[in-house]
Formats: sequence, structure tokens, C-alpha cells
Amino acid sequence: MDTVTIKDIARKCGVGVSTVSRAMNNHPDINPKTKEMILQVIAESGFVPNNSARNLKRVDARAVALLVKGMDNMFFTDIIHTIEKETQEQKYSCILQQVEEDENELELALELVKEKRLRGIIFLGGNFAHPEELQRRLTVPFVISTIGQLEKAGGYIGGSVSVDNRKESFKIVDYLCSLGHRQIAVLTSAEDDESIGKLRLDGYRQALENRGIAFDPSLVVYMEPEIDRYSLASGYRMTKKLLEAGARFSALYATADTLALGACRALKEAGVEVPADCSVAGFDGLDAGKYYIPSLTTLEQPAEEIAEATVRHLFQLIRKKEKPRRLFFEGKLVVRESTQEYRTRGDSATGGNHGREN
Amino acid sequence: MDTVTIKDIARKCGVGVSTVSRAMNNHPDINPKTKEMILQVIAESGFVPNNSARNLKRVDARAVALLVKGMDNMFFTDIIHTIEKETQEQKYSCILQQVEEDENELELALELVKEKRLRGIIFLGGNFAHPEELQRRLTVPFVISTIGQLEKAGGYIGGSVSVDNRKESFKIVDYLCSLGHRQIAVLTSAEDDESIGKLRLDGYRQALENRGIAFDPSLVVYMEPEIDRYSLASGYRMTKKLLEAGARFSALYATADTLALGACRALKEAGVEVPADCSVAGFDGLDAGKYYIPSLTTLEQPAEEIAEATVRHLFQLIRKKEKPRRLFFEGKLVVRESTQEYRTRGDSATGGNHGREN
Repeated sequence: MDTVTIKDIARKCGVGVSTVSRAMNNHPDINPKTKEMILQVIAESGFVPNNSARNLKRVDARAVALLVKGMDNMFFTDIIHTIEKETQEQKYSCILQQVEEDENELELALELVKEKRLRGIIFLGGNFAHPEELQRRLTVPFVISTIGQLEKAGGYIGGSVSVDNRKESFKIVDYLCSLGHRQIAVLTSAEDDESIGKLRLDGYRQALENRGIAFDPSLVVYMEPEIDRYSLASGYRMTKKLLEAGARFSALYATADTLALGACRALKEAGVEVPADCSVAGFDGLDAGKYYIPSLTTLEQPAEEIAEATVRHLFQLIRKKEKPRRLFFEGKLVVRESTQEYRTRGDSATGGNHGREN
Repeated sequence: MDTVTIKDIARKCGVGVSTVSRAMNNHPDINPKTKEMILQVIAESGFVPNNSARNLKRVDARAVALLVKGMDNMFFTDIIHTIEKETQEQKYSCILQQVEEDENELELALELVKEKRLRGIIFLGGNFAHPEELQRRLTVPFVISTIGQLEKAGGYIGGSVSVDNRKESFKIVDYLCSLGHRQIAVLTSAEDDESIGKLRLDGYRQALENRGIAFDPSLVVYMEPEIDRYSLASGYRMTKKLLEAGARFSALYATADTLALGACRALKEAGVEVPADCSVAGFDGLDAGKYYIPSLTTLEQPAEEIAEATVRHLFQLIRKKEKPRRLFFEGKLVVRESTQEYRTRGDSATGGNHGREN
């Protein structure tokens, strides 16, 4: 009975395959009696619909795990979407596993590999600064997605796919400098972070240095551990803090678009117009930034390509066709409404850039 | 060797458990030599770290599947997050499975249940209008999350957790009416949709009727199948279409916050000020709406509670402690900056509400 196909059903009912399909999908264009008859035949036949090629061979499929730290980070949405889709294309199932902020993703992964079906792991988000000795415990190949490089320890022994976070961060801060801004506030991750936030902050420092601008610690807002994440709420809170401290800046660089959008709102509530009084730039290239008012200048990451390459590389590792590599993609500076040239006080309709003297 | 614990390692090294933990987590506060020694002992011992209670018993865990149609819908992010977390709490693993727009989630589910570990299914998104006969093929319990009721077929034979989409939609449209708006445009799902979009559109119609306002088909914009989804881009496109058709309205109700945010941007680009020229209201209660400029009036769904109750109900079904039920949660009208009282032309600084004839 397991070999009953949709064609068998159609034949038995004396109708076409498309009519059977319509009955199954509750399509309006079908005679109710015909539909009832077809569903009755299906119910009696032991037919399990599986005519879609994508659905074949799912049974007890081998799996890869996707470990995500910071799943509410909007930037990850498309990446998770693409990774899951590409994994399905390979006829593997994808086990999504969240890693809480205080959890160790490597410990979690070591537990997961005990699962027999597991063939590979993708790590997304967080700070993958684990000693090489422990990484070697992972008996399946793994790829770190979106981070790129690590300062500590021996780096990864797995593959890695990302933009060069330091270089791309340099690019957008240099763009702000090119507009004439010299007092550029920055919202970044927690002070002890060794991951993306650190790399982007390094890029910020290098860009200032390259332009001969001194690094001013009073313009840096770090996330508070336990409280902040890459979210609009954090960007809002961090910017409030900056304003309350009386910091002077004509531009604000948020190391993630989520933070930048929250920052715009905090500035607005403080009566600071973006971009007239303060330019704001983000990082990531979220869709939300495109539709925000003002639309957001950002450094766009090729999220879909990064996700696709992550899966492709993992399967090359699983099939032993490649050694672990570090793949880098280029980001793209996207200039929108939230940034403009620095003007000295009095130039602009709103009385000059925020907090900037002269 | 499998029974080696972190305490054994600590004893063997002559250090405390916290020191071992610091070594494993690359904590800065540890003598490098001590750390090296500890990692060496770990490497030789066959110790697999699993001291976190949350990580125990993951091995070959039983699983539930989460089938998501429209994974890029921002409203689902928190729901998926919570469902996954709650499932882990139950010591089950969560298999995340995307359903493409043109795929049949029930067919997919029927394939998945062949998988031996699977104990239950949660359906999120899409249109679950499947004939009862086919639903009965699912040999594991299932719960439909966020939709609520169905018009067609016999409804669900599984459980259901959601707000009452029709009632909540009525609530927010009635609020717009109470502000004096009578020409209220609406952005909704595809015309043949039988799911959430349909229910919310019904609520809109009922609210107008209740206020004695005639339903005007020229004020309804349906999503285009194959093109539109619950995204900012769709809201933007749909509103452009409305404006290009020369529709007259003083308020716009988007049946999802994502659509509403895209709508605000399209209105802005057309020189229509929100809320001075046109009030905008959404549905869902996304974080993004809170930080948008203007912040968005919306009907907030208790996303976390819905997600938690979904998992709770599923496990009650798995454990045969309950029969499938329909659980409803209350939504909450959240009034923010994007809506204001209707003003006749000339009242407001910008020359009155958009397109509205006096």
C-alpha cells in the first residue's frame, strides 16, 4: 500500500491528477461532491502525499545543527532562513538550536554530536573564542558564520564565512570622516567582547587614526552585559546614556543597524534631528533601515551569499572535498538619508550639528 | 571514562571547579600556565563538559517539529525563539522546518511523522485549511499557533492557540473610527487567503458596519500572490499602488506592523505626513513599531504567552492529559504617535488629511 501514488488515486476516481491535487489543497474550483469522493478514496487508500520532489527522502534524514546565539538579532533572520533552505536542498534536516547568552556554544555542540544523525554544525552569533583543544573534541566538521577572524587562542579549526568585519567597519567610519565629521560617537558590544563587536570597534579606531583623529573614550558606549543585545531597545538605551553624559558628537556610528534605529529614536526624542544635527550610520544592511524615516546609511553585508557559502563549505567538509577555510565576502557602503556633510553651528536650519562646538 | 566530571578534572589538577571552568571558557582571569595544564588534563581525560543542567539528556532526544510558513515575518521571530526554548525545557529537541509559500504544510508534516523520534508538530503561519480527512493522517498531536479559527472545512482537529484575530482587528479599526476617520484604507493578504488576513479583514468590515460606514472596495489593497509577504517591502509597494490609484483616505490600517512600517515610508515619499495628513495603524506589536518615527499605533499580540501556551498545550496532548482545544489570548490596543483625530482640510498645519474631501 505504500506505493500508492497520486496517479493511482486519480485513476481510481476517474479524474485528473490536478483535480486530486485541488481536492487535497481545498481549492475552491472543484465540485464539492467530487472533492468528497476523492478524499474518501484517499482516506481508504493509504496514500501519503509526497509528490513534491523537495519532500522526498526526508525520513530519518541525516542532520546538521545550526547553533544560534542571539536569535532575536534581526540580521540573523535571513541567514537562518537561507541556511535552513540550503540544508534541505542537500536532503539533510536542520536542527535549530538556540544558545542562551550565558551558555557555552561549544559545550552544547559537544552534547549534540553524541546524536548519531548529526554530520556537521554551523555556529551563528556569539563569541567563538574556545581553546583549540576543546574545538578538537568536535567529531564533525563545523563552520562559523558571519564572525570572520579571532584574536584570541589559535582561532578556529573549523571553516569560517563572513565579511572582514574590521575592514568593512573601517570603510563606513572613513565615509563619516570624509563628510567632515571628527566627533563620531560609537555604539558597540560589551567591553570584554572578542567577537564581531570588537572587530568593528577596531575598524572604527583604525579609521579615526588613519584620518589623524584622536580616539575619545567618552564617545564609546559599550553594551551592558546581561541587559543589552543587538536590538532597537539597546540602541535606544545606549544613546540615551550618551546624551545624558553630555557627550559632544556630530555623527553616531552604531555597529549594527538594530542599534542605529534605536539610536535615531532616542535622538529624535532629545530634539536632535537626523541628519541635520547628527548623522547616523549602521552596519548590516537590514531591510528595516531601508524603510525607516530617515532611511539608514549602512554597511550592507551580503547575507544571502554568506549563508549559502556557509552551507556549501560545510558540505564540502562533510564530504571531505575541502579543508577548513576562511572565506571573506565584500560588504557594500549604502548611503541613504541618515548621513550628511558636517556643518558648523549656524549652517543648518536646526542650528548646527549636535553638541559640536563652533 | 565517560563518567569523568568537572570535579574529577579539578581534583586531578589540584584546582577548584571554577578555575577549570575559567580555563574552558577562555576567561582572562587565569594564569596561562595553569590554564594550559588544565586543558592538557581535559584533553587526556576523555572529559566531555556537560555540567549545565539544560544540556543533560539531549542525546537522541525525542523531537517536535516546528513548521513555519513565512519565516521572514518579523512577528514570528520571538515566537520561534520562545517555542524553541520551551521545547528544550521539556528535554525535546526542536526541528525547525520552513514551508515555502507554494508548499503544502500538511504534506510536509506527513513526511516528517515518518521520522521515529517525532512526537508532535507545531504549525506557524500560512493557511491551514486542510480537509479533516487529511489532518487525521497525522499520527502525532499538533497545534496551530497564531491563526485561531477557520472558516472552511471542519476546522482543525489539532489544538490552536492565538488571539481572536477578527475581534482584535475590529478593536483597532473601531479605534480609528472613534477618532473620526471614515475613509480607512486597508492593506491585507491575498484575496483568496483564508487565514489570518481574511479574519483581520473581516474584523475591519464589521467595525465599519458597526459604525454605519459603507465598505469601499477601492480602499482595500490585497497582497499579490507570489510577490508580497508580510514585509516592509510589501507594505511600501501596496501603499504606492493605493496612492497611484488616487484613493482618498484619512487613515490607513495595515493588517500587520511590517506592512504598516512600509506604508509610512511610502506615504512619506508621497509627501503625506503621518499622522497629520493620514493616521496609520498596524497589528502585531513589533518592537520595530515602538522605535519607528513616528512610533506606531498597533494591536499588540501577547507573542510570548501565545508561544508558551502553544508548547504547553502540545505537551499536554503528547502526554494525553488534554484533548485538543482552542485557546484564545487577549490583544492590547497600543496607541502611539502614528494616529490622531480626524481633521477636516485646513485644520492641520499640512493642509488637512490626505485625499479627504471636506
